[in-house]
Amino acid sequence: MKQVTALSPSPDLIAYYASAATDVYFLRARTTLKGAGLDAVVAMDFFAGRTGVLCGRAEAERLLHGVLQEGDEAWGLPEGESFGEKETVLRIRAPYSRFGVFETAILGMLSSCSGWATAAREVVEAAAGRRVISFGARHVHPLIGPTMEYSAVVGGCAGCATPLGAQLASLQGASGTMPHAMVLLFGDTVKAALAFDQHMPGDVMRIVLVDTFKDEAEESLRVAEALGKRLRGVRLDTPSERGGVTVELVKEVRARLDAAGFGHVGIFVSGGLTAARIREFEAAKCPIHSYGVGMSIAAAPPIAFTADIKEIEGKPMTKRGRIPGALPNPRLQRFI
Amino acid sequence: MKQVTALSPSPDLIAYYASAATDVYFLRARTTLKGAGLDAVVAMDFFAGRTGVLCGRAEAERLLHGVLQEGDEAWGLPEGESFGEKETVLRIRAPYSRFGVFETAILGMLSSCSGWATAAREVVEAAAGRRVISFGARHVHPLIGPTMEYSAVVGGCAGCATPLGAQLASLQGASGTMPHAMVLLFGDTVKAALAFDQHMPGDVMRIVLVDTFKDEAEESLRVAEALGKRLRGVRLDTPSERGGVTVELVKEVRARLDAAGFGHVGIFVSGGLTAARIREFEAAKCPIHSYGVGMSIAAAPPIAFTADIKEIEGKPMTKRGRIPGALPNPRLQRFI
Amino acid sequence: MKQVTALSPSPDLIAYYASAATDVYFLRARTTLKGAGLDAVVAMDFFAGRTGVLCGRAEAERLLHGVLQEGDEAWGLPEGESFGEKETVLRIRAPYSRFGVFETAILGMLSSCSGWATAAREVVEAAAGRRVISFGARHVHPLIGPTMEYSAVVGGCAGCATPLGAQLASLQGASGTMPHAMVLLFGDTVKAALAFDQHMPGDVMRIVLVDTFKDEAEESLRVAEALGKRLRGVRLDTPSERGGVTVELVKEVRARLDAAGFGHVGIFVSGGLTAARIREFEAAKCPIHSYGVGMSIAAAPPIAFTADIKEIEGKPMTKRGRIPGALPNPRLQRFI
Amino acid sequence: MKQVTALSPSPDLIAYYASAATDVYFLRARTTLKGAGLDAVVAMDFFAGRTGVLCGRAEAERLLHGVLQEGDEAWGLPEGESFGEKETVLRIRAPYSRFGVFETAILGMLSSCSGWATAAREVVEAAAGRRVISFGARHVHPLIGPTMEYSAVVGGCAGCATPLGAQLASLQGASGTMPHAMVLLFGDTVKAALAFDQHMPGDVMRIVLVDTFKDEAEESLRVAEALGKRLRGVRLDTPSERGGVTVELVKEVRARLDAAGFGHVGIFVSGGLTAARIREFEAAKCPIHSYGVGMSIAAAPPIAFTADIKEIEGKPMTKRGRIPGALPNPRLQRFI
Amino acid sequence: MKQVTALSPSPDLIAYYASAATDVYFLRARTTLKGAGLDAVVAMDFFAGRTGVLCGRAEAERLLHGVLQEGDEAWGLPEGESFGEKETVLRIRAPYSRFGVFETAILGMLSSCSGWATAAREVVEAAAGRRVISFGARHVHPLIGPTMEYSAVVGGCAGCATPLGAQLASLQGASGTMPHAMVLLFGDTVKAALAFDQHMPGDVMRIVLVDTFKDEAEESLRVAEALGKRLRGVRLDTPSERGGVTVELVKEVRARLDAAGFGHVGIFVSGGLTAARIREFEAAKCPIHSYGVGMSIAAAPPIAFTADIKEIEGKPMTKRGRIPGALPNPRLQRFI
Amino acid sequence: MKQVTALSPSPDLIAYYASAATDVYFLRARTTLKGAGLDAVVAMDFFAGRTGVLCGRAEAERLLHGVLQEGDEAWGLPEGESFGEKETVLRIRAPYSRFGVFETAILGMLSSCSGWATAAREVVEAAAGRRVISFGARHVHPLIGPTMEYSAVVGGCAGCATPLGAQLASLQGASGTMPHAMVLLFGDTVKAALAFDQHMPGDVMRIVLVDTFKDEAEESLRVAEALGKRLRGVRLDTPSERGGVTVELVKEVRARLDAAGFGHVGIFVSGGLTAARIREFEAAKCPIHSYGVGMSIAAAPPIAFTADIKEIEGKPMTKRGRIPGALPNPRLQRFI
Repeated sequence: MKQVTALSPSPDLIAYYASAATDVYFLRARTTLKGAGLDAVVAMDFFAGRTGVLCGRAEAERLLHGVLQEGDEAWGLPEGESFGEKETVLRIRAPYSRFGVFETAILGMLSSCSGWATAAREVVEAAAGRRVISFGARHVHPLIGPTMEYSAVVGGCAGCATPLGAQLASLQGASGTMPHAMVLLFGDTVKAALAFDQHMPGDVMRIVLVDTFKDEAEESLRVAEALGKRLRGVRLDTPSERGGVTVELVKEVRARLDAAGFGHVGIFVSGGLTAARIREFEAAKCPIHSYGVGMSIAAAPPIAFTADIKEIEGKPMTKRGRIPGALPNPRLQRFI
Repeated sequence: MKQVTALSPSPDLIAYYASAATDVYFLRARTTLKGAGLDAVVAMDFFAGRTGVLCGRAEAERLLHGVLQEGDEAWGLPEGESFGEKETVLRIRAPYSRFGVFETAILGMLSSCSGWATAAREVVEAAAGRRVISFGARHVHPLIGPTMEYSAVVGGCAGCATPLGAQLASLQGASGTMPHAMVLLFGDTVKAALAFDQHMPGDVMRIVLVDTFKDEAEESLRVAEALGKRLRGVRLDTPSERGGVTVELVKEVRARLDAAGFGHVGIFVSGGLTAARIREFEAAKCPIHSYGVGMSIAAAPPIAFTADIKEIEGKPMTKRGRIPGALPNPRLQRFI
Repeated sequence: MKQVTALSPSPDLIAYYASAATDVYFLRARTTLKGAGLDAVVAMDFFAGRTGVLCGRAEAERLLHGVLQEGDEAWGLPEGESFGEKETVLRIRAPYSRFGVFETAILGMLSSCSGWATAAREVVEAAAGRRVISFGARHVHPLIGPTMEYSAVVGGCAGCATPLGAQLASLQGASGTMPHAMVLLFGDTVKAALAFDQHMPGDVMRIVLVDTFKDEAEESLRVAEALGKRLRGVRLDTPSERGGVTVELVKEVRARLDAAGFGHVGIFVSGGLTAARIREFEAAKCPIHSYGVGMSIAAAPPIAFTADIKEIEGKPMTKRGRIPGALPNPRLQRFI
Repeated sequence: MKQVTALSPSPDLIAYYASAATDVYFLRARTTLKGAGLDAVVAMDFFAGRTGVLCGRAEAERLLHGVLQEGDEAWGLPEGESFGEKETVLRIRAPYSRFGVFETAILGMLSSCSGWATAAREVVEAAAGRRVISFGARHVHPLIGPTMEYSAVVGGCAGCATPLGAQLASLQGASGTMPHAMVLLFGDTVKAALAFDQHMPGDVMRIVLVDTFKDEAEESLRVAEALGKRLRGVRLDTPSERGGVTVELVKEVRARLDAAGFGHVGIFVSGGLTAARIREFEAAKCPIHSYGVGMSIAAAPPIAFTADIKEIEGKPMTKRGRIPGALPNPRLQRFI
Repeated sequence: MKQVTALSPSPDLIAYYASAATDVYFLRARTTLKGAGLDAVVAMDFFAGRTGVLCGRAEAERLLHGVLQEGDEAWGLPEGESFGEKETVLRIRAPYSRFGVFETAILGMLSSCSGWATAAREVVEAAAGRRVISFGARHVHPLIGPTMEYSAVVGGCAGCATPLGAQLASLQGASGTMPHAMVLLFGDTVKAALAFDQHMPGDVMRIVLVDTFKDEAEESLRVAEALGKRLRGVRLDTPSERGGVTVELVKEVRARLDAAGFGHVGIFVSGGLTAARIREFEAAKCPIHSYGVGMSIAAAPPIAFTADIKEIEGKPMTKRGRIPGALPNPRLQRFI
Repeated sequence: MKQVTALSPSPDLIAYYASAATDVYFLRARTTLKGAGLDAVVAMDFFAGRTGVLCGRAEAERLLHGVLQEGDEAWGLPEGESFGEKETVLRIRAPYSRFGVFETAILGMLSSCSGWATAAREVVEAAAGRRVISFGARHVHPLIGPTMEYSAVVGGCAGCATPLGAQLASLQGASGTMPHAMVLLFGDTVKAALAFDQHMPGDVMRIVLVDTFKDEAEESLRVAEALGKRLRGVRLDTPSERGGVTVELVKEVRARLDAAGFGHVGIFVSGGLTAARIREFEAAKCPIHSYGVGMSIAAAPPIAFTADIKEIEGKPMTKRGRIPGALPNPRLQRFI
């Protein structure tokens, strides 16, 4: 499988998609311009209509390295930087024929990835220093799941759920506890916890999901009694049908664990968390160890980026509705 | 490139991602259950918390064909069907060890694709019979762009913008006119239109973008005079800085074209269209030939799907908060 | 204690309060009028500024029987009847000196009792035929608790919680299950249930509170297994800290009881119920046996009643802002 | 009637109601626990879900003195103190068998009285130092009217309307002017005022109601001319049908009285006053002597109090959803 | 004064204003076009962006009769007709040089007058058949007051307040009762009423204003007793400081008049009336004889009319943003 | 026409309207009072129920000079001054018979003119120092157009559109550019601009309307190239059908003019401007030379003024609902 690993997503795969998943009218423009013998060095600026956190620019850079040539220019803001409304985050100055067809791919990389990174940033800021793990891989198509997780890490998440995502984000490994399905198969949370403890390598944290069969507070105590000091934490993932995880539930579980002498057991929370919900937990000074966040990051809409030609052969020029000329932006750094 | 074409996205690529982009806790559960020598035939149901249009199920079926075995069962609603709140859209009955790790991938396929298909359906219904083309490939990462376009077509779109998307959706070819960049390079819309007409194959519709340099109504008349009967249409894509495309603009361009004898020239509209905006155009009986829709479909959030074990070894069983037992759903069709 | 029972509330007690808890200015008016040798037969009308359900009129009748004399008149709508905005619900025609000081008492009886009866009526209508029990005695001062419960029964409740309230409302006995305190003292719900079953007379329904220690669904099954056919029902009273009782919880408990063969066990719901919440349960066709309602009835504000002199010695007369004359109201029945 | 006066409400009456107006399930719990031979020293905490002004605790104290025994403990916040959300305001530590059945009564005392006191406090604060008189006895059942007035005084009111209420609140006497009925019987406000002046003892303030027959400004001048220096004030109680009492009306009456040399005559306002309306009068610097407030205090909803067992035999213990253990609250004072 | 009467407003006065109160750029355009020797027969359409009631067109017609010549055309909807959004209400087809400078005047006539007529129509419809009198002359500059009243009558009012307005609207005479100032000078309403009755000609209705000194109900009875059968009505104009005229006040005055045998005395209402307030009176079936309306009509904003050239020398032509060509409107009638 | 000029509006014309456009009830009051031989020196105060900018007082002063006599008094705030809620802005102290019938006229002058001046002040303050020109003459009847423009200048406008308005406001001349009609007749903006430049006197600023035929940015450059240094500015008046004038459009036209070396050409904006829209332009630091404002000033509703008698023969006296006496207002200046 080694050669396939290189595809995750490999530069070749990206280059293929960048060509074949481009808007067809760029291909038609290429044909028409070539037929008319027309080409020119243009400056093209990429910007968004709102503020956000830039992501996807690193991947765009890898693509452009295979596309641009000696003497061409590419400038950009660093990956993970905040950008302003209509601020140029990427500028290419090169013959149009060389990169025109990649406009779709570059816009798409910036749009999707910046959307996720921006949402992650908001969630992470809400958590005020506590760890946020991106648990939303299941909410997006698997082809793009790892890219979403990479973006979440760029936005500030401390971990993510899939091995491929962790690899893309240069993390040590993926994060996770145990699924409800496993607990159900064991038929009892304590049995599941003991088996998990027995069969997992030492570097996997013993965090046990405690809402499958019984009341969370009761189950937390049963699990803590069974695993003792080896128990790193319990995960609360109460379904909305049972009111979801509330501030009061966390405080009660904490109080009951402490009263029983299990002060070392952390509380991990997941299930329908949003930045607003997390702010509530933090405002209530809830004793939470880390947050697992799914839809709030994974379902973040892409941020619409636009690419405009601003100069042709060094002369300011643009379409109606936009201001001609590639304005200097001191934050841009040349990378090609 | 033939072997790469097979990847677009090929079953192997999907299978690889389905394994490596799974939540790590499913891998840990597999190890634990195996270590404990525990397995069971389970029934797992997939459902969403809201209504929508099902998409991604066909891809999930392809994945499951490589995973399940003789005697296992898989049931589902047809691709493109509407589903109800909490209605089971997919049911797998098989030993858990065989498919447990694919929960992330299947959920992701259903979530992303159904999100796009559902949004497309709303837009298409707003258009009340006029053609809607998915123009949003540029708003999502290129790895997933074609899948988004496929989902838009499942939701009812008549066309899409990228060759790979068109292939995935079994369309004849991608749809597109000409980009602003090309018109800018020619320096004049009429020149660009004439070159386009000269160099494009006969089966490409001559639709000219008319908002690059001049007032749309003026430019439409100039282009119509230049191309005459060969002109199939004009595309209005007025930027928001100039007020966007309005009902009044469309009616005025139509009136001026008609008054000048160009009744055969259609009007194609794009730029920031939403279902609500389209309903306004339709309510005003705007003479529009087709709509190009981007963000309204491409930025649709995924629909969160959930997978629950409902039976273990034929006995109703599920986690707290859910109702045990795999209820019969007469709409489900067995496909494995 | 027999002689005290007569006080619950006895006519003497009421008469005492009616005199000593009157607005002092009525006492001053009595002195002034007597000093001036002034008296007259007046017609006084009692009405409210809003619609509602009349209650307290029976008690007012008992008071008036001790106050009015031969030849005086008193007319009223029947207890429990709906009344309109500004509709006369009670009319007294007698020498003012005879009943003037009781205006405060009569207004107060009508105001408090009609407020509770009107709220009860709304809740009862929301319940669409299912039994509603008034459980709010604890939310009002014990002196008035039984009167509140009487009013709730006039408004349509099928039962109430205190023996004195039940007596006042002519019910067979008060309704109730078991308090959390008792379950806590037993330390286990099943133990508490068994003891309850052992020590209660046969005519007390075996309804067990199931949210004290464990998850409600789990506990319901344990209790049902312990008591078998003798178990009449379980009471769900989930605290708000755990999300309260939800539609989904009721349906899940029902499904799990049925699946385990305990179809004969009913579900009784209490805790923060309002007419709106009950309408949600009913709209969701929740399989509920009866509702226990507290604050929604007990905290209902009194309905402000007003008493106006409308005639003096047979001549229409009233204060500025009101229309003189005691208009005929065919719904009024003479009771004195 | 002396022995009856002792009932207003006498400790015996209260004790009777505390027993017979208790929730029946506490009686059943007593039987069950006794049957099972089970008892324990418990700590029970009383608290509310919102902030407010504590009232009813003094009456609860009187009740507990007849219930608890040597060695038992009772702690509480002082009557009239503000309490926080979920703050313990009363704690009992004693064998459960001794006080369990009084939970309903104690909760009810705290709930009703704190509701009224909290509403009174808000109104009194709105009045910014001017006297507020509780005039709402007529809006509640006479059995509870004096208790409501006592609570209003605890909340800050300077007076109340009924003799029994004044006695309960340890005031010199009740407050009041004259009712519309008396003025109507005299047929003229000036005649009524003169008779009132003639027949009332010297310590009753001459305050005349001026809206029965004529425009308030006109009537105020007529009355002032008739009573001269003996007139202490006029009461404006304009009905809503005539626009109620407005800022402008008060200012105009003040100006006309002053212009006619009646600067010594105060203005007393009543009729539909709320904290918000009073704030408007104060913001407009309206020259008002005192406010008579009815429904805004009398119709205040009870504040729902809850009683939870927090310890059993010295060990932290409580029901699911609550945090076990009787936390120290330095504001609590031991009274038994 | 005869020659001055002709100015009210006379054609000469209007013509002078139409020339000298035109936008200066029309004068400059006239000079420029003349200098360039340029003129053309144009069709100019007048329309508004909203619906309304057309008024001012009759005055525009009078102006155009002095401006257009043989062979020119002018078409219009009838005065008082409802018009649609963007519907052409006036069309002139003539050499531009002949009428171009009158665009300001014609637009202004239509805008102001249609604004008032449209507001009047709404009020009149609210009154559901009862008479509405325009009493708002005092709210607009006297130069335009009569024109406002004329427009109110076109909109449906049955009368107006000023002699000049009545003349312009071809009414028999102006409507009015008596001002507060007169009543104040008499010092008593009854004295004022008797003097009014003595000195007014027989055709002036005896309607007496009853809110100057005393309560309206009291004063109505005093006046009715003084004038007996000669009293046609009372006018209620209660100031907002006393709560304004309310439904309840009208009903009470009616009841008290009827009870005293003055059923022949009508009730006339004025003071802050709006269409919404009138609908409330009508919904409450208030026994009102007629409504006097001021600001609701007089302060109606003008309706912005626009004039566009739609043809030049018979060819469709217009500015960008509008649709060229003078569309046939079958509702237009030719008047020149 | 000289003698007619004196009418614009001449004192005689105003005096005529002041008499004949008065409410008829003032005429009836004059007859009644005269018949009763009743007159008195009264103080009458004029005030409004809201704050605003005083205008029309100068015209009222001219009227009163022809009405009052030796010994009478008239006091007022200066024209253009801000006034407070219910603040007296004009006080007349004279025999009522002398000025009573002019109440309608004076109220009307103050109401209309203050309404316009107040609206103008808000717009002018929004423009933060940039010139605002009143362009709304076309939105009001020509008889009152110049008065509206005078009021707008009192409120702070730097210019107005009609010669008569400019004369009334003592401006050098009216302001204006060129109408769409003239550009349409020339058939080309550049041709129209050249003719305008050729035929206008030197003191008329060359400002060219650029939205008639082509895109504003394109047309601005064409016009600038044709007129060069003689071009003072371009006027943007984009119709709402094309999105109106936006911040982005102004910035783009500015950028394109600057880039082409036409930094001396100013930008004049008109079309649907409101104070809110102007604040947006200013907040966005839009490089605008001046604003032309129509409806926002011309359609301002009149401010309702009231006139009350406050003293009769030196004694405080007024109607019910108002405070008697003419309070000293140090801001009032005596002018008669």
